Amino acid sequence: MAEEPRLHVVIPAGGSGTRLWPLSRASRPKFLHALTGTGRTLLQETVDRMAGLAPQSQVHVVTGVTHAAAVARQLPDVPEDNLFVEPSPRDSCAAIALAAAVIGSREPGALMGAFPADHMIGDVDRFRAVVRQAAAVAAEGRLTTIGITPTRPEVGYGYLRTGESLPSGGGLRVAEFKEKPSYDVAAAYLKSGDYLWNAGMFLWRVSDFLDELSRQRPDMHAGVSRIAGAWDSGARDAVLAEAWPRLEKISVDYAVMEGAAAAGRVATVPGDFAWNDIGDFRALGDMLPADESRNVVIGAGDTLLADVEDVVVAPVPGRLLAALGVRDLVIVDTEDAVLVCHRDRAQDVKKLVDALRDRGDTDHV
Amino acid sequence: MAEEPRLHVVIPAGGSGTRLWPLSRASRPKFLHALTGTGRTLLQETVDRMAGLAPQSQVHVVTGVTHAAAVARQLPDVPEDNLFVEPSPRDSCAAIALAAAVIGSREPGALMGAFPADHMIGDVDRFRAVVRQAAAVAAEGRLTTIGITPTRPEVGYGYLRTGESLPSGGGLRVAEFKEKPSYDVAAAYLKSGDYLWNAGMFLWRVSDFLDELSRQRPDMHAGVSRIAGAWDSGARDAVLAEAWPRLEKISVDYAVMEGAAAAGRVATVPGDFAWNDIGDFRALGDMLPADESRNVVIGAGDTLLADVEDVVVAPVPGRLLAALGVRDLVIVDTEDAVLVCHRDRAQDVKKLVDALRDRGDTDHV
Repeated sequence: MAEEPRLHVVIPAGGSGTRLWPLSRASRPKFLHALTGTGRTLLQETVDRMAGLAPQSQVHVVTGVTHAAAVARQLPDVPEDNLFVEPSPRDSCAAIALAAAVIGSREPGALMGAFPADHMIGDVDRFRAVVRQAAAVAAEGRLTTIGITPTRPEVGYGYLRTGESLPSGGGLRVAEFKEKPSYDVAAAYLKSGDYLWNAGMFLWRVSDFLDELSRQRPDMHAGVSRIAGAWDSGARDAVLAEAWPRLEKISVDYAVMEGAAAAGRVATVPGDFAWNDIGDFRALGDMLPADESRNVVIGAGDTLLADVEDVVVAPVPGRLLAALGVRDLVIVDTEDAVLVCHRDRAQDVKKLVDALRDRGDTDHV
Repeated sequence: MAEEPRLHVVIPAGGSGTRLWPLSRASRPKFLHALTGTGRTLLQETVDRMAGLAPQSQVHVVTGVTHAAAVARQLPDVPEDNLFVEPSPRDSCAAIALAAAVIGSREPGALMGAFPADHMIGDVDRFRAVVRQAAAVAAEGRLTTIGITPTRPEVGYGYLRTGESLPSGGGLRVAEFKEKPSYDVAAAYLKSGDYLWNAGMFLWRVSDFLDELSRQRPDMHAGVSRIAGAWDSGARDAVLAEAWPRLEKISVDYAVMEGAAAAGRVATVPGDFAWNDIGDFRALGDMLPADESRNVVIGAGDTLLADVEDVVVAPVPGRLLAALGVRDLVIVDTEDAVLVCHRDRAQDVKKLVDALRDRGDTDHV
């Protein structure tokens, strides 16, 4: 029997996190920000969490041209060869398939784990134990996803419907991927015990993923294979310029995972390590420690709060954020914009960003 | 009979307006700001209102060393000789007495009108008519104040109790000056019809004021007379340095007007020209035109308001002020600080400024 395959971590670092505007911008998305009080950015925390699972020589990041320099500087110990810069955004399937193909060309027997750059995880030891368990399930040939045990009828996430237990490793079959549900459907999911949140964390042998990609999306497979073949050569730029724009713009869930689940090839290991994808400031405030008036201060800046309760404030260094006699607000200050939002409307902040785009404001989005 | 005396306007421009923080600062008080949507500052509007009453060659401003340069630049047509810079703040009696003494030394028969730099006036034509009427009453030898006909039981202003009608000019005797009342007392004042708001606008012959000052505050009279004697000479600085710090720190109401009223020497002409001293952002919001959601935008800056009602916002050029799903707030953005305050707490903003002073923050007060 061959030696145990090495785990290669892939961190897709894309998207702008518009619900965290104006802190998160297209030019400075949420994964580049320190939001959790540790002084480390979400991207850095994602890498930090991999300690003990994979050395940084086996950590890879897929990001866009706009953020390549910031990613490189935030992660000085990740080798340059492991920073994959997409010429343009082509959604998650292209990003993950590119990483799989390049890693596969470098180490055909590699195990790969994909972990988004902008999640918060409460219990890191538990997280690592679940990842190890999922790696063992993946090593047996299944496309394996980490499903989060739901704690509330959340309508903001997709779900996994689980099937029978697998013979080994504590995994379950994934019977079906489910879109974001209505509230009533989410409540029924929660009650049934048969559904997990789809957290976008996947583990598989690179060869298994590429086989499934080839079966379901042969054009995508051919494209990324061609790019991967040229990646570690002087032809990378030329092949990328020609092949990358032709890749289908589609999420990995739609492109590969749903069809693989239908074919019985997807497993899941449930995780219960306090997970949050930090969709908006309310969610972020709920995750962070509050003061005795239930106010949460994000980041390091000067604040003066008088008769203020249940407020999430994000000051910015060099400016003063003062509030008097208010409650249930989100107040986010930045170098060039300030947002005041009712806490219950935090998820609608993305509509403000849409409104800014509509009026042609490229300075603030 | 002598020719009609010329009206000399004196504009005391002091105080920092802490209830309009963070827009109004010790370093940039409210009279230096354009708050009313005209693009003119409160100080400039105060001078503009004098058109037709007195040419700018007869307009004078008394201000402190910190604001002398800004005042000089905002009022390019006021002669340099008419800008009186106090070496240190000594309250309103010293400021007004200095102006009266200097004007009196230049033109002994002058009529003088004092108008604070930070008031808003809705009906300027009516204002001018009332000033002319008050000037006629003053020309007969009375210390004359313009009293504002009250429109609500306001507890933030002082009051004038009126006495009998004067034989000529539509003036009334002022029987008594009254401190800021309780709400119940203010309501009784309003009901009685015998009380006017004390707006701090005075007209008198310079000689009448100086005589009354001499009678009630002989030391102050001697001090300002000495300073005025040196004002238009090379000795101004030396005499100011010696005499100014010895002047009593007292308001003109306490020092002169209350005693003059008791002696039957004060008259008033009631004014009904929509007056506001812009104490706080709520008062300012109430004076300015609102949009269809009853929001008021102060100044020229970039705003994005979504589902926002009954909010007063003050954006700052070069920054974006965005709000979502909030009501009954005051949001004031500046270059280095932002304030979010419940509209009902606008008068408590000065407490925030006190708190900043207490913690030694001299950058933001």
